[in-house]
Amino acid sequence: MTVLAYGTPAADTPLSQMEIIRRAPGPHDVQIDILFCGICHSDLHQARSEWAGTLYPCVPGHEIVGRVAAVGGHVGSHKVGDLVGVGCMVDSCQHCADCDEGLENYCDGMVGTYNGPSPDAPGHTLGGYSQQVVVHERYVLKVSHPEEQLAAVAPLLCAGITTYSPLRHWQAGPGKKVGVVGIGGLGHMGLKLAHAMGAHVVAFTTSESKRADALALGADEVVVSRHPEEMAAHAKSFDFILNTVAAPHDLDPFLGLLKRDGTMTLVGAPASPHPSPNVFGFITKRRSLAGSMIGGIPETQEMLDFCAEHGITSDIEMIRAEQIETAYERMLKGDVKYRFVMDIATMGQ
Amino acid sequence: MTVLAYGTPAADTPLSQMEIIRRAPGPHDVQIDILFCGICHSDLHQARSEWAGTLYPCVPGHEIVGRVAAVGGHVGSHKVGDLVGVGCMVDSCQHCADCDEGLENYCDGMVGTYNGPSPDAPGHTLGGYSQQVVVHERYVLKVSHPEEQLAAVAPLLCAGITTYSPLRHWQAGPGKKVGVVGIGGLGHMGLKLAHAMGAHVVAFTTSESKRADALALGADEVVVSRHPEEMAAHAKSFDFILNTVAAPHDLDPFLGLLKRDGTMTLVGAPASPHPSPNVFGFITKRRSLAGSMIGGIPETQEMLDFCAEHGITSDIEMIRAEQIETAYERMLKGDVKYRFVMDIATMGQ
Ligand SMILES: [Zn+2]
Ligand SMILES: [Zn+2]
Ligand SMILES: [Zn+2]
Ligand SMILES: [Zn+2]
Repeated sequence: MTVLAYGTPAADTPLSQMEIIRRAPGPHDVQIDILFCGICHSDLHQARSEWAGTLYPCVPGHEIVGRVAAVGGHVGSHKVGDLVGVGCMVDSCQHCADCDEGLENYCDGMVGTYNGPSPDAPGHTLGGYSQQVVVHERYVLKVSHPEEQLAAVAPLLCAGITTYSPLRHWQAGPGKKVGVVGIGGLGHMGLKLAHAMGAHVVAFTTSESKRADALALGADEVVVSRHPEEMAAHAKSFDFILNTVAAPHDLDPFLGLLKRDGTMTLVGAPASPHPSPNVFGFITKRRSLAGSMIGGIPETQEMLDFCAEHGITSDIEMIRAEQIETAYERMLKGDVKYRFVMDIATMGQ
Repeated sequence: MTVLAYGTPAADTPLSQMEIIRRAPGPHDVQIDILFCGICHSDLHQARSEWAGTLYPCVPGHEIVGRVAAVGGHVGSHKVGDLVGVGCMVDSCQHCADCDEGLENYCDGMVGTYNGPSPDAPGHTLGGYSQQVVVHERYVLKVSHPEEQLAAVAPLLCAGITTYSPLRHWQAGPGKKVGVVGIGGLGHMGLKLAHAMGAHVVAFTTSESKRADALALGADEVVVSRHPEEMAAHAKSFDFILNTVAAPHDLDPFLGLLKRDGTMTLVGAPASPHPSPNVFGFITKRRSLAGSMIGGIPETQEMLDFCAEHGITSDIEMIRAEQIETAYERMLKGDVKYRFVMDIATMGQ
């Protein structure tokens, strides 16, 4: 099938409308009419080949919500008309320890929703800035939010699970003091989720102007990290800090806020390294620095269900497909509260 | 009481014999005739003021074994004639969460065996290169090794617990693949302990010449870390890596050997930073980098009992007190298998 998409034939070419081919659904495939697709920083990095190895044409998009249009003969878990989501992956090896434990995100054979290896034309996967996608049922999530919230559900598929997974893994919850560094696409989800999990949540921002917003998003306290005395008031007090800032920055002031046995987990990878953290900060309180990448499929479903139950969605700004380059420029400046979402219905209008 | 000690009045003066004063035992104190004291890298750093804040006169030494000479009226846990040990600390606040959990090593009020604050003359603690020491009973450990092994027990009080504690905390044991980086005073204990705990143990060394020794110490395999093909054969396979190397080095090749959810723990702090680790290495497998500092008192007792039960001691080279500066020089060159121990009976002879 030929469908419309937004993509680019080269790193230095703006995204524009193009036609792409989607395979006919196989026995385990789900064919999805895409309704909305969130706009992630990764999309921009990939489209502009700021990471190594972008394959062209490139169609980004891995925060997908839509409605099932058709299913293969062996699909038992989804049916035509269901509201579903697809996140950052559309396949994995399905037989390693990671896959067996539902941590397909850590499988060496994980296939990204775009730029991953694929037998389909053009030889690599094409993402959610498109009218349809065909995905193996294992990687299709059920969406139980009310239909009017669908656009704001889309970013849960990447920004939501990327913050939910480490918060759960490091046991954010009642009695725990949890920090969230950075209040952007990821961080604003981290605040909402950590708050809903019952933790005492402290937002860290470099910007005084975000104080009120952070409180509204679920923070119990806000610390302007440029103010040493505000930082010092929280020394050695955090069980867990979720650091969503991808720009290189000094990790030591945050590591020093962890209790003994506390962990700070990075979910953004900087283009150039952070300054090397001070080893004394680790040793003197048995602290850890960790990383986390999206989440597995069962946990993504758990996250969607948790969000539906708690009325959590992303704060979004809707764009038409042809506004994608403007959205990228504004995203680079942090000028979005907090996620752009593409209305796929505007494609081809 | 005046007793003999080896110490130094200034950073640039070699250690020599001096007289120091020990307090009369209070109600909870144990007075110990020191028999042997291990020689730790920290001793040298402190004596030469390579770390900030050395107080002079400085008497190093925190790997102490000896025999109880007297006890205060309220001491219930030790009696005259007992063989005992004292490690890196002689006091702590005794009422914080760390102290309550038996992790006095992480207490903000932890008092080091030397260079710590003390009401006793000269206003700071003086270590184990001395004929006697007086220590609160809480920080005195029972030694149950055979008496002829006492000299080789001394290094367990720092090198032993520094490696035992992280191996236990990160659950080295049967079914786990554990790496030990560096085969020196700490590393050789790490190999013995991890082996005795039942883990599959891989030693990492930069020196081909240490291969046979590492196997003899308990390694199941030895990897020369300068050989990329040897390293590659172990990619993504370790549950835990104990890194004992304090010299700045590239952590990424070792982080890449960890499985998903694996941890590398540093027990040495470099004088200048390690190269900044690559964040992708953390994120893509949810890996952690951690630090650990000695161990708590209950765990130190557990370690001593474990070692007695498994016949574990340190490999040592005995020195006379006046050989201390030569021992330091050889230690700096790595020319010791694997720990110098001072025979305190040679003091004043
Ligand atoms: Zn994303
Ligand atoms: Zn797999
Ligand atoms: Zn030591
Ligand atoms: Zn304490």
